[in-house]
Amino acid sequence: MTSSPELTRRQMILSSGILLAGVSQTNGLQAQAPEKDLIFRTTDPRNAEPALNKLITSWITPTKHFYVRSHAPNPKIDPKTFRLSVEGMVDKPLSLSLADIQSHQEYTLTATLTCAGNRRAEFNKEGKVGGVQWDAGAIGNATWTGVALSEILRKAGVQASAKHVWFKGLDEITKGDGIIPFGASIPLEKALGAGDDVGALLCYGMNGETLTADHGYPLRTLVPGYIGARSVKWLGKIVVSDVTSPNHYLANAYKLVKKTESIDWSESGPIYRYLVNAAVGSHEKGAELEAGKADLAGYVLPSGILGGRVKHVQVSVNNGKSWKKAELTGEDSDFCWQLWKASVQVTEETKEIVVRAEDSSGGFMPYRVPWNAKGYLQNSWYRLPVTVKAT
Amino acid sequence: MTSSPELTRRQMILSSGILLAGVSQTNGLQAQAPEKDLIFRTTDPRNAEPALNKLITSWITPTKHFYVRSHAPNPKIDPKTFRLSVEGMVDKPLSLSLADIQSHQEYTLTATLTCAGNRRAEFNKEGKVGGVQWDAGAIGNATWTGVALSEILRKAGVQASAKHVWFKGLDEITKGDGIIPFGASIPLEKALGAGDDVGALLCYGMNGETLTADHGYPLRTLVPGYIGARSVKWLGKIVVSDVTSPNHYLANAYKLVKKTESIDWSESGPIYRYLVNAAVGSHEKGAELEAGKADLAGYVLPSGILGGRVKHVQVSVNNGKSWKKAELTGEDSDFCWQLWKASVQVTEETKEIVVRAEDSSGGFMPYRVPWNAKGYLQNSWYRLPVTVKAT
Repeated sequence: MTSSPELTRRQMILSSGILLAGVSQTNGLQAQAPEKDLIFRTTDPRNAEPALNKLITSWITPTKHFYVRSHAPNPKIDPKTFRLSVEGMVDKPLSLSLADIQSHQEYTLTATLTCAGNRRAEFNKEGKVGGVQWDAGAIGNATWTGVALSEILRKAGVQASAKHVWFKGLDEITKGDGIIPFGASIPLEKALGAGDDVGALLCYGMNGETLTADHGYPLRTLVPGYIGARSVKWLGKIVVSDVTSPNHYLANAYKLVKKTESIDWSESGPIYRYLVNAAVGSHEKGAELEAGKADLAGYVLPSGILGGRVKHVQVSVNNGKSWKKAELTGEDSDFCWQLWKASVQVTEETKEIVVRAEDSSGGFMPYRVPWNAKGYLQNSWYRLPVTVKAT
Repeated sequence: MTSSPELTRRQMILSSGILLAGVSQTNGLQAQAPEKDLIFRTTDPRNAEPALNKLITSWITPTKHFYVRSHAPNPKIDPKTFRLSVEGMVDKPLSLSLADIQSHQEYTLTATLTCAGNRRAEFNKEGKVGGVQWDAGAIGNATWTGVALSEILRKAGVQASAKHVWFKGLDEITKGDGIIPFGASIPLEKALGAGDDVGALLCYGMNGETLTADHGYPLRTLVPGYIGARSVKWLGKIVVSDVTSPNHYLANAYKLVKKTESIDWSESGPIYRYLVNAAVGSHEKGAELEAGKADLAGYVLPSGILGGRVKHVQVSVNNGKSWKKAELTGEDSDFCWQLWKASVQVTEETKEIVVRAEDSSGGFMPYRVPWNAKGYLQNSWYRLPVTVKAT
């Protein structure tokens, strides 16, 4: 996370809300990323990830190559009438226009978002898992512009018994017989941040542009270090509470469960922080290599803990009997991924390239991850099947 | 779990409360297990585990060899004036004497209890963890006699919005400036049980005898499949609620955390079910063996899931390059451990006996468990260092 409140880009990119208002007029009509930039796993709702070779070409992921995770069609929101409500355990409930929000100190920071279901498809080897069948592309690193959630909360006056902050989206998800918004909550301590950690942002900008509809226009949360599901898009309401959100996506999903019955949700806590993870992006699964030197590249993300850093990425061509340390590239910043590259010797016996990583907070990619019914937090050794031909 | 309500031992062991009342007169004065039966990790409060070679001699663990985990001195409770209160989200709050409780259908079932901190001391290799420094003996399999919590709850009338059942002990734990009871909560679904699962018991008997003071006399909960901390001893109060217990031992302990700051507790859910685990009991760490055949034995516990069974226990003398399947002994019953034995060939090169297990619910003992600040759920490959001498 590179946070530079002193060097805001707001005048440049948002021009006191004018550009935001300008873009807003095409909201819902604005051009979506063409399909060639992303691989759509589902189109209604829109769920897409980039090809991995595109993903790893730059430390900052261009918005057109940034994964999209939605549970309903993008809502059409009129920025002129948009209001964010802040209620619950606060002294003074608020109803804020976009201009009200933008009157606060602006922050621009870089942080990686990743879906808890990234690499989900790998669980199917052990037992079928439902949900979007993500490869390893449900991750991206962007620069986010917005205001600190903590400042909005302080303005509302958080009451002493508060413990969690709920987010509700303006999207409309058909669930059983009803329609619900996507929702989440985060612990109050995370919402408020502390020390070097700004906590969570309320964002209106991504990579120097106004947020696109796919990424939550006009307003979303950005919770560095947490799984993407906690960075609620199309944010419409904040509720301060003494308990976690009862919204389905906090209470009954995004948890590690063996089954999906009522007791399983009751027994499991919500996932918040993402785990260390890595993948190969330079080669597709099943790639044909020539015997000799193979140049590999990929991404690595340390666990979502403030100050966490990649300790090492290692590559093996013999299923872990020996490992070669990869070289890290890209910036080394809080809550951000890095890229890596390594040259290894492959022979006709090499059937698989294996990658694992470890981070400074004690996080490591294990040999095997326990299967879970929703297919979350797959961060076992990344395995790239290859065929090697004699030169 | 072998539950046989039709064959109760009540008349034999409790004789309509008479024996219970008789034993009660020595409550607080009754003989404690002599130290030779258990290794005391702390004496105030009483925390003790058996030597592993004693632990694995029988499928049912004799009470004198059953681990003791307490957070305060054993409370002195007069069974004549004892009342269990049942309150919160119920239609009819109850205040029950022991006789009231025993007027319900009696169940006798066998279930394993294990401390979430079993094998904690092994975490110290990676980073010091506080708490009782358990070896692998904080586990035991006993026969429990009591009534179904579900029947008591149905008598009180659980309200529709209820989701969790809190337990409060009568012990007095000094915590900071105050005194608190040990407490826990379990999801309502677990409290009520379903189908073949009786759910939780309110117990007054253990291994055919009245509960000892160390194990919660006169009344404790027994929650099969859950870590021992949810089976609250010296039970005095049950509260039905829509939220989990705010008691320290549910809200701010018995969770997997990297640090122990406020945000860490907020981000982590309570641990309920225990994980598959196994250990060697036939030999001490550092044992001297003779080259050739070595006869090993130990225990194995499948994950705390109804119907879960041990799939296999495997032993390796070469750090996992090859494995030999162990033979299971002891009964094969819900929520119960089994014992195992295996003969392996050791040589002067053998420095370590390694054991791992896998169960029918997909649980497995991993190569390495992520370090956590409280040292819970250590179930990595069990490693027994040995020295082998030429014959």
